[in-house]
Amino acid sequence: MSLIFYYAPMTSATRIHWALEELEMPYEKKKIDLAKGEQKAPEYLAMNPNGKVPLVFEDGVAIYESLAILIYLGERYGVDKGLFPKPGMERAESLTWLCWAQGTLADAGGRMMRNTSERFPEDERNAKAGESAKKELQTALGIVERALEGKEYLVGGKFSYADLAVAGFVPFLARLGADLSSFKNIQAWSARCTARPALARAMQG
Amino acid sequence: MSLIFYYAPMTSATRIHWALEELEMPYEKKKIDLAKGEQKAPEYLAMNPNGKVPLVFEDGVAIYESLAILIYLGERYGVDKGLFPKPGMERAESLTWLCWAQGTLADAGGRMMRNTSERFPEDERNAKAGESAKKELQTALGIVERALEGKEYLVGGKFSYADLAVAGFVPFLARLGADLSSFKNIQAWSARCTARPALARAMQG
Repeated sequence: MSLIFYYAPMTSATRIHWALEELEMPYEKKKIDLAKGEQKAPEYLAMNPNGKVPLVFEDGVAIYESLAILIYLGERYGVDKGLFPKPGMERAESLTWLCWAQGTLADAGGRMMRNTSERFPEDERNAKAGESAKKELQTALGIVERALEGKEYLVGGKFSYADLAVAGFVPFLARLGADLSSFKNIQAWSARCTARPALARAMQG
Repeated sequence: MSLIFYYAPMTSATRIHWALEELEMPYEKKKIDLAKGEQKAPEYLAMNPNGKVPLVFEDGVAIYESLAILIYLGERYGVDKGLFPKPGMERAESLTWLCWAQGTLADAGGRMMRNTSERFPEDERNAKAGESAKKELQTALGIVERALEGKEYLVGGKFSYADLAVAGFVPFLARLGADLSSFKNIQAWSARCTARPALARAMQG
């Protein structure tokens, strides 16, 4: 068991936890107590200078940024398991979805959160910036809605890390206040993705 | 010549232009006139529903998000040219830098810009959020500075897409107001990277 997964519940580590559980392979879990500041301990910072979870340590290398970990797991383990396409044009489509989920969808959601949520200091919020971010978020969700027209999953006709990367943000965006009511395809697909046993196992922490 | 590159000067397409020029292979360039709204034309939106540049079209597939394009080019063409490691732990390190450049470094820079730059509406800015973002940006630059200690390049002892992905943001961050004065390693490395002839060719537009 050479892969070690450092995580904390209710963070972006959850999608990596989900991705690992989908692989159905052994790995070691180490929970980082964020309240105790374990992510700022010198031995952790030596692995991830950002002092954040998730982190995957394997073969002597520390891999951080959840997007990098997802692509790494996909390349190394996901192809054989049918969760990530082999190099080629389906791989290119998957990379586009993975990077879009982070750079466009979660970016708009993150800006909405920073400008509207009580988790961020009131004097650093701007209500109008929050409204603009919400509009961008709805536009981004519209792109997913149309991409799912007549499809069960985003790439290659079956569940893959592309679905995990995008659908993994949907419950979070809904809690933030994204309006999913007119997005019937997203609702059905998101329910299909988040009903997967691997996610249920990851949510147990 | 099957690869078509859609771009506009002074956008995130520049780093993809740079990455393509590093490959020294033929490709077709199509400039999108953002002022004329060509990025919102139906035929363009059919390829990239986000209506943005850059976009790479190859083998019938439209690839967008500059990070996805960079990884795609690296996987498909960069390994043979020594610009992207073959699958393995150096690849994992490279992916970490590529995703970190986008998700941490450019994220802090982007927030600083949105809250301080006149390019964004005044009533959507928040000066305190801009200060916080600047602090995060300086912390992120400190991570690059330490990673470069005793090294010419970030991964594998030679210039690669990892350097391009991180150094590509440095001139932009400096223009935004990032303080590089104490980061001697970044200054020397950034100068080495941005002096490459491939970037000069890309900047010609």
